[in-house]
Amino acid sequence: MSFTAPTEDQVLAMRICAGIDELAEHERYSAATPDLVEAIAEGIGAFAAGEWAPLNRIGDTEGAHCKDGVVSSPAGYAEAYKAFVEQGWGSIAGPAEFGGQGLPFTLATCVLETLGAANMGFTLLPMLTVGAIEALDHHGSDAQKAMYLPNLISGAWSGTMNLTEPQAGSDVGALRSTAVPINDGPHAGKYRIAGTKIYITWGEHELAENVIHLVLARTPGAPAGSRGISLFIVPKYHVNADGSLGERNDLRAVSIEHKLGINVSPTCVMSYGDNGECIGELVGHENEGLKAMFTMMNSARINVGSQGVQIAERALQQARMYARDRVQSARAGSPDKNPVAIIEHPDVRRMILRMRALTEGSRALLYYTAGQVDRGLLGDKAAQQRAELLVPLLKAWGTDVGCEVASLGIQIHGGMGFVEETGAAQHYRDSRIAPIYEGTNGIQAADLVTRKLGMEQGGVLQALMADISAEMQDVPEVASLAKDAAAIGSWMASGDASLDDKLAGSVPFLTMCAVAVAGWQLARQARATGSVEKTAVTKVFNRTIVPEARGLGAAAMAGAALYYELESEALTG
Amino acid sequence: MSFTAPTEDQVLAMRICAGIDELAEHERYSAATPDLVEAIAEGIGAFAAGEWAPLNRIGDTEGAHCKDGVVSSPAGYAEAYKAFVEQGWGSIAGPAEFGGQGLPFTLATCVLETLGAANMGFTLLPMLTVGAIEALDHHGSDAQKAMYLPNLISGAWSGTMNLTEPQAGSDVGALRSTAVPINDGPHAGKYRIAGTKIYITWGEHELAENVIHLVLARTPGAPAGSRGISLFIVPKYHVNADGSLGERNDLRAVSIEHKLGINVSPTCVMSYGDNGECIGELVGHENEGLKAMFTMMNSARINVGSQGVQIAERALQQARMYARDRVQSARAGSPDKNPVAIIEHPDVRRMILRMRALTEGSRALLYYTAGQVDRGLLGDKAAQQRAELLVPLLKAWGTDVGCEVASLGIQIHGGMGFVEETGAAQHYRDSRIAPIYEGTNGIQAADLVTRKLGMEQGGVLQALMADISAEMQDVPEVASLAKDAAAIGSWMASGDASLDDKLAGSVPFLTMCAVAVAGWQLARQARATGSVEKTAVTKVFNRTIVPEARGLGAAAMAGAALYYELESEALTG
Repeated sequence: MSFTAPTEDQVLAMRICAGIDELAEHERYSAATPDLVEAIAEGIGAFAAGEWAPLNRIGDTEGAHCKDGVVSSPAGYAEAYKAFVEQGWGSIAGPAEFGGQGLPFTLATCVLETLGAANMGFTLLPMLTVGAIEALDHHGSDAQKAMYLPNLISGAWSGTMNLTEPQAGSDVGALRSTAVPINDGPHAGKYRIAGTKIYITWGEHELAENVIHLVLARTPGAPAGSRGISLFIVPKYHVNADGSLGERNDLRAVSIEHKLGINVSPTCVMSYGDNGECIGELVGHENEGLKAMFTMMNSARINVGSQGVQIAERALQQARMYARDRVQSARAGSPDKNPVAIIEHPDVRRMILRMRALTEGSRALLYYTAGQVDRGLLGDKAAQQRAELLVPLLKAWGTDVGCEVASLGIQIHGGMGFVEETGAAQHYRDSRIAPIYEGTNGIQAADLVTRKLGMEQGGVLQALMADISAEMQDVPEVASLAKDAAAIGSWMASGDASLDDKLAGSVPFLTMCAVAVAGWQLARQARATGSVEKTAVTKVFNRTIVPEARGLGAAAMAGAALYYELESEALTG
Repeated sequence: MSFTAPTEDQVLAMRICAGIDELAEHERYSAATPDLVEAIAEGIGAFAAGEWAPLNRIGDTEGAHCKDGVVSSPAGYAEAYKAFVEQGWGSIAGPAEFGGQGLPFTLATCVLETLGAANMGFTLLPMLTVGAIEALDHHGSDAQKAMYLPNLISGAWSGTMNLTEPQAGSDVGALRSTAVPINDGPHAGKYRIAGTKIYITWGEHELAENVIHLVLARTPGAPAGSRGISLFIVPKYHVNADGSLGERNDLRAVSIEHKLGINVSPTCVMSYGDNGECIGELVGHENEGLKAMFTMMNSARINVGSQGVQIAERALQQARMYARDRVQSARAGSPDKNPVAIIEHPDVRRMILRMRALTEGSRALLYYTAGQVDRGLLGDKAAQQRAELLVPLLKAWGTDVGCEVASLGIQIHGGMGFVEETGAAQHYRDSRIAPIYEGTNGIQAADLVTRKLGMEQGGVLQALMADISAEMQDVPEVASLAKDAAAIGSWMASGDASLDDKLAGSVPFLTMCAVAVAGWQLARQARATGSVEKTAVTKVFNRTIVPEARGLGAAAMAGAALYYELESEALTG
């Protein structure tokens, strides 16, 4: 279960799909020279393989433990996190004025992808911190930025997101936590926070010196629903004016969940204000909490989509090592009857190549998306809109890929794959969370067919598909899929499709769009490099996975009536 | 997590897909009257729901334990197994002269399906016993049948299959266990068995009074490979001439595996002959062990395919209860903004209906296959060949369905699905073994495109697809898929496709064939009953799942060269 970072493919994806060299032509990103890009990819690859990957297994078998509100991590994690902080891997894309390196999001994507492939559950810790940094960078006051950002960017402190409550899962607007303004005393101007939050990833732990919780809550008299939600900074330890840590705040981890996977990541039930003394400070204005959340959402969803790529890479590496080393049966029809490594058997080879095509295809989509984000940050509005369109594709399809590749990884191992000691099963278990959190894949698909398809009256999608069709004239499978997706997009954007029709077809439609983009970007890589290997992988993608995606067209256009012929009672027994 | 047996759908599938009424017209099966069929379906449904289903969770959380060679089961299992034996549920299809009821295989299928939906890991115990019964019934001597069959049929004793060895997974011919004839003494005429076997399901336990191991081993001087394998009866306790139990045989469970799922089922490493005193008796003739294994294989593979249906049913029941009870968010576009049960949301409804369509579709395939097996047992050679063709379709696609439906079951639950306490994750973990054991799904696909496609020079497949096309003229999706499958089958049977080409396309081709049969059988059910519910589910199957299967055509015909462009070294890093 050794791990080697996929550095070469990452650098290729950064060059061809993200267009990192073009990004470096802008003054803001001028530091991102080809040398630096390679140095970062290689550096994080060595770090992840050397320090984080070896801890992946113990993270699964021992997991996190919560006792009396203290969450402990398995042996080695504290040192590995310390090394991450000391080497500055959390600071890549952070704003320079607060200690960040101000490099492109694309490079931060490479860092997180690599760490996550080495150790997916552990990487949630810096990933959530990125979310807190973004929220504060965009919506915090200057004082808040100065107080919190440097330590979050360095990783000395970590961040969390507190949205979900037991009665409010995907429906954030239903949350009930409260925040009452404090008028007098040492905390005047701040708020007293009270409520219970669930599914708080790395909500409590001992690896960082402080944990900065970003908590959504309602102020007195706030409007009902999502328009009455405000965002608060609620630190585990109060921060003194000089930046030193003060008293413990009135918040605690009540328990952690017993999960299917990512066991090292403590998924906490957090209780705020048990003693009425939980103090938080408002970020931005009251009732604008959801806006702040939306700010973070794009990159958070990209980072979860990346987790699909990560677990796929890890599962692929393990499976191909097994397929190379496991000798079993002669090739069918071989005269000599000598057993061969199973990679020689056609169906095993098909599975390994499918795993590779899906992994590299989703990575190509990841970096294409990251590159569009970076262009958006540089002021290119069309790129920003395209990035917004790509985000649900990457999040949903990328995480579906993670699950499928992890499952194929088990299959390659045969009976050994079902035995936990082999490690293939961990990837299968870990992968399954990614289609759920940060907005289920169904919610991503709804985002695609409502909000994203609505941009420019469907024009953002049509422009993307037109680009693909135009560039893929010599790759007819991809061009055809892009045309199918464009036609379905037109139907959905027209008056002919009801809102329910769009939603009923949204998931298959999303897959079609994502596969079209991935096939396109893979073909661009193959074309740019002329690499025999990339060409072979691309062919597998475009001749098998792309036609499968075309087969989803009927479901995408099936319409909602198909699903409402039966009453709910008949459907649920 | 309560469970209700899908009795109505099972009876429908037995009537329409297996044609149980026609079977009952034959003297051999004349006892299988409609009343009896319903009584058995209802009886096993009540028993499974009342006695076995409530133990499913503790079976997962506590699992089996092995200490000093003794394997223990969680509380309640001994009583539940005893009740199974006392009520005679293991005896449905057993030969009447040894205490069985001699009823159709179709009815035994219903019993196992129901038990397995209630408790998949537990049901492996009677399922493996069925395999031992079949092997002895077809290949044992009269004395062996008299000595072993009555207690196996009643379930007082259980049976196991011992094929796999560490170096011999899918390649049974590579096994090394030995069997040396004994010439003198009390065991003269028997064999001394020695070797280690792995993955022995329920290889050791305390629920039955004796465990009858069927062990593949090599006699001295036996030919190499699969032609030198013989089958032996190796009982845990010797059986005296009067049928009473004697001394313990020299065999033991060394350990049990720590697995991803089916934790209640002890997967044993078995050691035979540690002290040179493990005694076994030959079944049939030396070197004909593999033939005996093939006898059992058809029904064993059907029973594993059934496990896919089982876990799908269980996951579906849990998901639809959750979808009915969980209230979250208003319908998109609803003016009142009142939150609704999530079953009302289009994409959740799509997922539930997809789960139902896949579950009922795979069940339809299961009973269609069982009915063909029964016709084969009655002497209909065409039906027997069709059954042989259907077996790999059911085993592979049925188990793929189990995994997909269990995964959708998690998705319906959102974050709760990833938390083990919910129980949805157990189905996801349990389901994953079925595509692996009893011949991986890749091996099923190889069986389809080599052995099964070879029957009557492809004629068995062509006849099936022609039947479907002819009957489905008013269901164009299914007719088209059957025609696609027939065309690919022709290509594969022609000289144009190499053996490697067939193998490279075998898995997608298998899925296409299986979906065509399932869609056909669902449509036949809908037509025969006129049921609104069945019609609605069938439409979902035929308008979404069938077109997806057509999208696999390109991969089925992609040819092997696509997968051999790269050297193995390039592929495995």
